[in-house]
Amino acid sequence: MTATERVDLAVADLHPALGDPALTSMNFLNEVSERYPAAVSLAAGRPYEEFFDLAAVHRHLDTFHRHLVDDLGHRPEQARRLLLQYGRTKGIVHHLIARNLAVDEGITVDGEDIVVTVGCQEAMFLVLRALRAGPTDVLLAVAPTYVGLTGAARLVDLPVWPVAGGPSGIDLADLAAQVRRARAAGLRPRACYLMPDFANPSGVSIDTAHRRRLLELAGQEELLLLEDNPYGLFPVDDGPRPPTLKALDTARRVVYLGSFAKTVLPGARVGYVVADQRVAGPDGRVGPFADQLAMIKSMVTVNTSPIAQAVIGGRLLEHGCSLVAANTRERSAYTRNLRHLVAGLARRFPPGADGAAAVRWTVPAGGFFVVVTVPFPVDDALLDRSARDHGVLWTPMAHFYDDTAPVHALRLSVSAVTPEQIDVGLDRLAALITDERARRAG
Amino acid sequence: MTATERVDLAVADLHPALGDPALTSMNFLNEVSERYPAAVSLAAGRPYEEFFDLAAVHRHLDTFHRHLVDDLGHRPEQARRLLLQYGRTKGIVHHLIARNLAVDEGITVDGEDIVVTVGCQEAMFLVLRALRAGPTDVLLAVAPTYVGLTGAARLVDLPVWPVAGGPSGIDLADLAAQVRRARAAGLRPRACYLMPDFANPSGVSIDTAHRRRLLELAGQEELLLLEDNPYGLFPVDDGPRPPTLKALDTARRVVYLGSFAKTVLPGARVGYVVADQRVAGPDGRVGPFADQLAMIKSMVTVNTSPIAQAVIGGRLLEHGCSLVAANTRERSAYTRNLRHLVAGLARRFPPGADGAAAVRWTVPAGGFFVVVTVPFPVDDALLDRSARDHGVLWTPMAHFYDDTAPVHALRLSVSAVTPEQIDVGLDRLAALITDERARRAG
Repeated sequence: MTATERVDLAVADLHPALGDPALTSMNFLNEVSERYPAAVSLAAGRPYEEFFDLAAVHRHLDTFHRHLVDDLGHRPEQARRLLLQYGRTKGIVHHLIARNLAVDEGITVDGEDIVVTVGCQEAMFLVLRALRAGPTDVLLAVAPTYVGLTGAARLVDLPVWPVAGGPSGIDLADLAAQVRRARAAGLRPRACYLMPDFANPSGVSIDTAHRRRLLELAGQEELLLLEDNPYGLFPVDDGPRPPTLKALDTARRVVYLGSFAKTVLPGARVGYVVADQRVAGPDGRVGPFADQLAMIKSMVTVNTSPIAQAVIGGRLLEHGCSLVAANTRERSAYTRNLRHLVAGLARRFPPGADGAAAVRWTVPAGGFFVVVTVPFPVDDALLDRSARDHGVLWTPMAHFYDDTAPVHALRLSVSAVTPEQIDVGLDRLAALITDERARRAG
Repeated sequence: MTATERVDLAVADLHPALGDPALTSMNFLNEVSERYPAAVSLAAGRPYEEFFDLAAVHRHLDTFHRHLVDDLGHRPEQARRLLLQYGRTKGIVHHLIARNLAVDEGITVDGEDIVVTVGCQEAMFLVLRALRAGPTDVLLAVAPTYVGLTGAARLVDLPVWPVAGGPSGIDLADLAAQVRRARAAGLRPRACYLMPDFANPSGVSIDTAHRRRLLELAGQEELLLLEDNPYGLFPVDDGPRPPTLKALDTARRVVYLGSFAKTVLPGARVGYVVADQRVAGPDGRVGPFADQLAMIKSMVTVNTSPIAQAVIGGRLLEHGCSLVAANTRERSAYTRNLRHLVAGLARRFPPGADGAAAVRWTVPAGGFFVVVTVPFPVDDALLDRSARDHGVLWTPMAHFYDDTAPVHALRLSVSAVTPEQIDVGLDRLAALITDERARRAG
C-alpha cells in the first residue's frame, strides 16, 4: 500500500457487522498470534492434532463408500453420484448422526429433523437467520458468550441480550427477568443460546436438576433453547455424563447444535443441527424446522460437501457410531492437560498469599477452558505485552462480553498444547502477572 | 403428520425469505422431479457425471499433499495441519486458483485477493452480505436471473432490480436508466450481477466490444460488476474465447465469482471470489475487499474444508492449473449434446409451420442451456402435467423473473443427459406442446 493508493470502498459503506468488535476481535487475536509465532499459545481452542492422520481420511472415505453399497444397497453409480454430484440439501450422513445421538446421548431423533452443515458455525448462522423475522426480534445468550454466536447474530442484524451465567451455568431468575424486560420494551426474545457442557469460555457446566428447571422455564416463557455442545464428550471424570437438554426435551423446545470439529476433524468442516420443531407453512403444510433451515442453506452453501460428510461418516461407522468410543485417546490427552494446568496454577499461585488481590481460577469438570481471575483489568494491550515481553498467548475474557466494561479475567485453553508447553506457558503467565502488579503498584 | 399435531412455529414468524418464491421455487422443482423419477430430465443443470471417479478423489488428495511437502517445503506435520486442522479463512488453494486464472483466463490476481468459498453460492452470499449496508441499498441483476442470486439477495434483505438482458446479454441503455431511476428514488445501486458467458438461464453471451462498453459505463456510474462465470469453459466452437470482464478490468470494477462445480466436481463444494477492491477501514488501514469477505465468512462457515480444497488443488496440479486442459472430455460431451438438442428441435419444429404461433429457441454458443419460446404461458401447472402425462421435465422460465408476469418460455438443459435421452425428451416435449395447443384451441 502506498499513501496515494486509490481506495474503492470504505468499511462504513459495507454491512455494519464489518466494523463491529464481534467480528474484528477474532482478527485481532489471530494477528497477535501471527506476530509472535514463537509464543506458547494457551489461547487456541483448536483440538489436539497429535492423532491427525491423512491415511485415516482415505480410509474413512472408503468405509463410507462401502456402507453406501453394502449396507444401503446403492448401485456403484448411485454411490458415486451421492459422493460427487450435487445432492440432498439436508445432507447424506443424517442417519449416522441420528444413530450417534442415540448411542452417545440417548437422544431419539428422526434423520429428517437433521441438517448437516458446514461446521457448527453454519448451523448457528442458519438458525439465527431463520429466527430473525424483523427488527423487534432479539436473541438471549448466556454471558460470557462464544464469539462465533455473537458474530453470526451481527450478520443477521439480531441483537444479543446477555443473560447472567453465574456458578450454575445459567441464572434462571435473570433469564426470566430479561425475557420480561425485553417483552416490556416491545421486543420479541426468539431463543436463548447456551453451552450446558464445559462452556466456551467459562468452562462451567449445568447440573441435571438445573437443566430440568431451565426446560420448565423455557416452556412457561415459550422460548426456544439453542443448545451448543462441542465439548460434552470430554469430561475429566468417568461415570455418567449429565443428559443433554435435547435428551430431556419432551416439548420440542430445544434446537441442538452439533460439531464434529473436536470429535473427528476440524478440516472436514462438518456440523449439524437437530431442528424437530413443527413449522406450519402459509399453505397449512406442516414440516420440521429443519426443512426451513435447509431452504436457507440452499442459498448460503447449497449442500455440505458430501466428500467431507463421507469422512465423518466413515469415522462414525468405524466406531459403531459412538464418538465416545472414537475419542478415548483424545479425552485422555485433554484430561491430562486440564489436570496439569490446574495443578500448575495451584503451584504458582498458592492460596492465601495475596488476600483480596489473589489470582483465582475455575476448575472445570471437563472441556478445554480454564478462566483465571487477576487483580487488574485484562485488555488487548496486556495481551500484546504478554506476547511480546513474555512469549505467552491467552484470550482476554472481555472478548466474550458484548460491552466495553473492563473484565479482570483471561481464558486459558489446554486443547492444543503438551504438558511441557503448559509448564512454560504458566511460568510466563506468572511472570506477566508479577510484572503487571509491580507496574500498577509502582 | 396428524390433524391434531401441535405446531411450534409458523413460517410467518420466521425470516420473510422463507415464504418467498425465490426460495420455495427451487423446492417445487425438486419435488416435481422426486415425484416423477422416471421422467427424462431436461431440467437439471448438474454436470455430466459419466467421468466422475472416486479413485481420482483419493489421487487428488495425495497430489495436493505432495505439493505441500515437495513444492512448498512444508514439514509433514505442517502439511497434515493444513489439511486437517482449522485454518486460513481465505483458504489454502488460492495460489493455484491465481495460477489457473492466469493460465486459462489471462487474469492477473494476487492470491491475497481471493477467498475460497463453499461453492460459488457462498461467494455470492458473502458479497451481497457485505454490500448490503442499509435499507436503501439495491442490487441490479440482468434478467432473467439465476435463482441462487435472487435467493441469496432475499436472505440479506437486498432488493433485486432487473436490468434487461436482451440479445446482447445486457441492455446498457436500460442499465443506465435503472441506475438513474434507483438514485432518483433515493436508493443506492451497489452492483450489477451478470453471467457474461452462456448465461443461466438465457444461454446468451456478451461479445468483447459490448463487454468493454459495459466496463466503461460501470466506471462512469461507479458501479461494481459481479461477474459469475460457471460455464465459460464450455464453448461449442474452437478458437479464442472472449476475455472475461475481470481480464479487461483495469479499474477494479469487477468482483469475479468462480465455481469448480462444473469444471472439477460439485461434491467438493468449492468456489471462490476474486475481490481486489481496496477497502479503507475506520482506522485508515487499507486492504482488499477479500479481507472483509473473509471476516464475514468466519461467522458463516469459518473456512472452506481444506480436504475439499485439496481435491480441487490436486486436480488443478494434475493439469498444470489449466481447467481448459482438464475438461476436454467434458467439453466434447456438452458440445455434442447442445448440437444434438438444437438439431432435434429443428427437426421437430420445422420453420414456417405455424407462423406467429411457432415454437422458437435460442442457439447458444456454449454452456448448458437452451431457451424454448412457445405460443402459450409456461407455468408450474404445465410442468406438473408435463411430468405426469408426458414424462419430461424442464424449467419454466418464469422462475428466473422476479415478478409474476406470465412467461411463454421454458429452459432446457443438456448437461446431465445422453443424446438418447435428449431424443426421448424432445419427443415428449413435442407431444406436450401439441396437447397444450389443442387444449387451448379446443
